[in-house]
Amino acid sequence: MSAAASAVRVIGLWPSPFVTRVLIALKLKGVEYEFVEEELHLGKKSELLLRSNPVHKRIPVLLHHGKPISESLVIVQYIDEAWSSAAPAILPADPYTRAVHRFWAKYIDDKLPPAIRTLRGSDDGDKEHAAGQLSAALQLLEGAFLELSQGKSYFGGDGVGYLDIALVSYVGWVRAVEKIAGVAFLDQAKVPNLAAWAGRLYAHAAVEDAIPDADKLVEFSVKYASSKPINNGAK
Amino acid sequence: MSAAASAVRVIGLWPSPFVTRVLIALKLKGVEYEFVEEELHLGKKSELLLRSNPVHKRIPVLLHHGKPISESLVIVQYIDEAWSSAAPAILPADPYTRAVHRFWAKYIDDKLPPAIRTLRGSDDGDKEHAAGQLSAALQLLEGAFLELSQGKSYFGGDGVGYLDIALVSYVGWVRAVEKIAGVAFLDQAKVPNLAAWAGRLYAHAAVEDAIPDADKLVEFSVKYASSKPINNGAK
Repeated sequence: MSAAASAVRVIGLWPSPFVTRVLIALKLKGVEYEFVEEELHLGKKSELLLRSNPVHKRIPVLLHHGKPISESLVIVQYIDEAWSSAAPAILPADPYTRAVHRFWAKYIDDKLPPAIRTLRGSDDGDKEHAAGQLSAALQLLEGAFLELSQGKSYFGGDGVGYLDIALVSYVGWVRAVEKIAGVAFLDQAKVPNLAAWAGRLYAHAAVEDAIPDADKLVEFSVKYASSKPINNGAK
Repeated sequence: MSAAASAVRVIGLWPSPFVTRVLIALKLKGVEYEFVEEELHLGKKSELLLRSNPVHKRIPVLLHHGKPISESLVIVQYIDEAWSSAAPAILPADPYTRAVHRFWAKYIDDKLPPAIRTLRGSDDGDKEHAAGQLSAALQLLEGAFLELSQGKSYFGGDGVGYLDIALVSYVGWVRAVEKIAGVAFLDQAKVPNLAAWAGRLYAHAAVEDAIPDADKLVEFSVKYASSKPINNGAK
């Protein structure tokens, strides 16, 4: 481990979409980091996690020279601001566009996790209703993509930006619940632009290794169906 | 109405803590605005609101030269960035301190509204549990205040900042539920530093007119107890 990596540590768990965001942001900025994986055994949170996020006791936490930061979207903005001289900028430069990105990132965190939890079976709830909620959210995001990308590759335009990170972190889980529920959500026929966007991001150097494989997430869902170690309030 | 005011419009309702935030941020920056009040009659949202926030159909919305922005904390950050040359800065300058402010602002929005809604009777739920939740949250915020203010007047130090705005917007409602529930929450004996902080903010020029009077909020709660026009998802 180099000195640069030990200056930045991420406390996380591999299946967490919230952790994925932090890893993508660090990779985009070219920041070396050490990944400190929590144990998956229920009720065994590490001393480091409990000390670093005493308020919520949940992952992810970014430790920068030992100073802890929690909440995934707060961490992504911190990475953008603390390494502001390292290209690319993650938040758009224009205040209005920044506000629109922040609006949709909040929308994503309000709408996607409850639907995904119900569809993967870690939360009770009407699966058909959840499927409808997820489809409707992706439909709105398809429209937002057309408006924000303006014919370019990403929500951020030519480069991966804040909203790309906020949404792509769920794509592994969307693919997993597609397999579990037998329904296509992020589909060429339903949301063609978003489906093509996801394909482009999966081939992006900063993203491809950060996103958990859908088959592994399905396995994980089966194994931990009743213990809910990940979605237990992680943000 | 001057041309400057018509360039900035706020769609809102007077009892909403989320609207309060927007008004405080505009007053701090010295931005003239026009307040466009929604009708309180249930189910009668204005055409302007429906057009400006088609995703959530809820207040507040800031219209800047006709371009809409929704979600109160997104709007506050937008005001800080769009009027960046107007003192004071609302977000702290240091990236780590910004992250800590954003963390606690999210904590406030996660914890306070559910407790307040239960205590004022607009949501069902165990009132004693809600009182405990509210007290516990204020206790943690008392600690955060001591850490962040470092002996100065505000969370933001010498000046009112992001976290001051995020929290003070609920003080009118905390005072109202104190009257409704007959319990002191923001109390000298329980959270002395936070109680003194609230007193200072109430005397601040940008805050005193923006915060609804607790007695009026009690009246409002009684009148609209069953129709829930405000807390119905407003953010």
